[in-house]
Amino acid sequence: MSSLTDVQAHALTEAQQRISQDLLTALDAFYIPEPLKGAVYHAVMLGGKRVRPALSYAAAALKPNTNYAAVRRAAVAVEFIHCYSLAHDDLPCMDNDLLRRGQPTCHAAFGEDTALLAGDILQSMAFEILGSRLFDQGPAVDSSIVLKQMQILATASSKMVNGQVLDIQAEGKHVDQEALENIHRNKTGALISAAIMMAAVTIFDGTDAAIPKLREFGLAIGLAFQVQDDILDIISDTAMLGKTAGKDQQADKSTYPALMGLENAQAYAKELHDQALNALSYFEAEQAAELLNIVQFLLSRKS
Amino acid sequence: MSSLTDVQAHALTEAQQRISQDLLTALDAFYIPEPLKGAVYHAVMLGGKRVRPALSYAAAALKPNTNYAAVRRAAVAVEFIHCYSLAHDDLPCMDNDLLRRGQPTCHAAFGEDTALLAGDILQSMAFEILGSRLFDQGPAVDSSIVLKQMQILATASSKMVNGQVLDIQAEGKHVDQEALENIHRNKTGALISAAIMMAAVTIFDGTDAAIPKLREFGLAIGLAFQVQDDILDIISDTAMLGKTAGKDQQADKSTYPALMGLENAQAYAKELHDQALNALSYFEAEQAAELLNIVQFLLSRKS
Repeated sequence: MSSLTDVQAHALTEAQQRISQDLLTALDAFYIPEPLKGAVYHAVMLGGKRVRPALSYAAAALKPNTNYAAVRRAAVAVEFIHCYSLAHDDLPCMDNDLLRRGQPTCHAAFGEDTALLAGDILQSMAFEILGSRLFDQGPAVDSSIVLKQMQILATASSKMVNGQVLDIQAEGKHVDQEALENIHRNKTGALISAAIMMAAVTIFDGTDAAIPKLREFGLAIGLAFQVQDDILDIISDTAMLGKTAGKDQQADKSTYPALMGLENAQAYAKELHDQALNALSYFEAEQAAELLNIVQFLLSRKS
Repeated sequence: MSSLTDVQAHALTEAQQRISQDLLTALDAFYIPEPLKGAVYHAVMLGGKRVRPALSYAAAALKPNTNYAAVRRAAVAVEFIHCYSLAHDDLPCMDNDLLRRGQPTCHAAFGEDTALLAGDILQSMAFEILGSRLFDQGPAVDSSIVLKQMQILATASSKMVNGQVLDIQAEGKHVDQEALENIHRNKTGALISAAIMMAAVTIFDGTDAAIPKLREFGLAIGLAFQVQDDILDIISDTAMLGKTAGKDQQADKSTYPALMGLENAQAYAKELHDQALNALSYFEAEQAAELLNIVQFLLSRKS
């Protein structure tokens, strides 16, 4: 797929800046004692692609006059969960990684105990934000919607941990494509889907046909994201990735390129993106523009 | 305060058995891959006093015809949070403890990575349970009540982590009583209060005068619990405690006996219990019987 146009790239950068601002606003709403505060801000504000919150925002654009406050809270909450998982994933007892996004990881900068606690509190902060009135200007969103958001986020967070365990268990073993997909649908797919579905239940009625379409989209894009990640771990270098390249091979992890070869993995990534686009074709192109933009970004990204 | 009567002790044992059964039912509702499943069950089913869920149940008894399903979910959720905190607290980068309730700690039995992930998933499982229909036999409880429960639990979980940090920061330093109370109100008090308040918002209307009374009770009993813990760390031995005794002194932690002397600390524990009893005097003695029973248990306990 071709690279992003300047207009698309600009739109994405703008979205990322809006997201960073919302994350910072959310963090500032909490009292956190030092040195935990520094570690939490480090874990969240280190940068990153902000794919999950961007998907929440973009999904909300599918329907005009959306209650954006509830979507913005969902976007912050899902990124908090993602950032907690990275802080814990980098710990010595896990991946033992000192570099993330070109910066010291949370425990490298703040110590293991503080990084552990930063991950722990980010998880509960995610649910605090979801149930708060942060960003509200109009009336409160219906409790039943917030409850749905909470259920989606909690379930996805549990699946993410299950996926971690399945991933660790698969190290050094030959796993087939079905097992590999099961790992990734849990480890990364669930939270990516959650980012989309938390916006979906906010803007669409539970019986709306848009809901299953967005679920289909989420499943495809979530898996596509992981396949692309596996590919980039091989074809990129450390400077480009901002994290240690080639880690998967070193850890003898099961990856799509290892399973099916690099070219087939690239073809599979493209196929999953096509599935994602197909699910989006249900919506009007103008309103799905932000989601389409993200799909193109994910396939053309270099890190 | 005198020991529990046989009738009181029997009632508490019965409550603990009901709670253990609910915890097991809740755990069984999840799919968790091994070895994580073993670690999660170990972290939750290791026993313990079940003080928090017992407080939820007992608070619910304040009002006849309570929706017990929502209270039972809250009780499970708060105990999941407590168990996650213990699994993380015992890790080598934290207290590095190998013994808990006379058994190997989670990481001693399952390894650090699995113990970390067991704590992580227990936190999200708590919110899953809260938003589920587990134990429901009648109609669903109102979404706004579940949302309140979620806010209470998420806020208390964050405070608990803050309290951990304040506690670590205070090691080896002289802190005054105000600072010590701030540590404990966050570290242990918040979750104990949450156990009571999640039941309170389920059974009482938000404007009911019972709510502030229960808040007052929760604050007093939460702090009393910690003062008593500090006292037991000094006067009990390892066999009785089921965990390593004298750890606080070894770690040069600030405790009430260290701050004010053992006798004054014991008097202070009694004073806090009287405050708790005073708050409960708002309710009819018959309906507050279960809560009164727990108060007496907490002050007379030996571990």
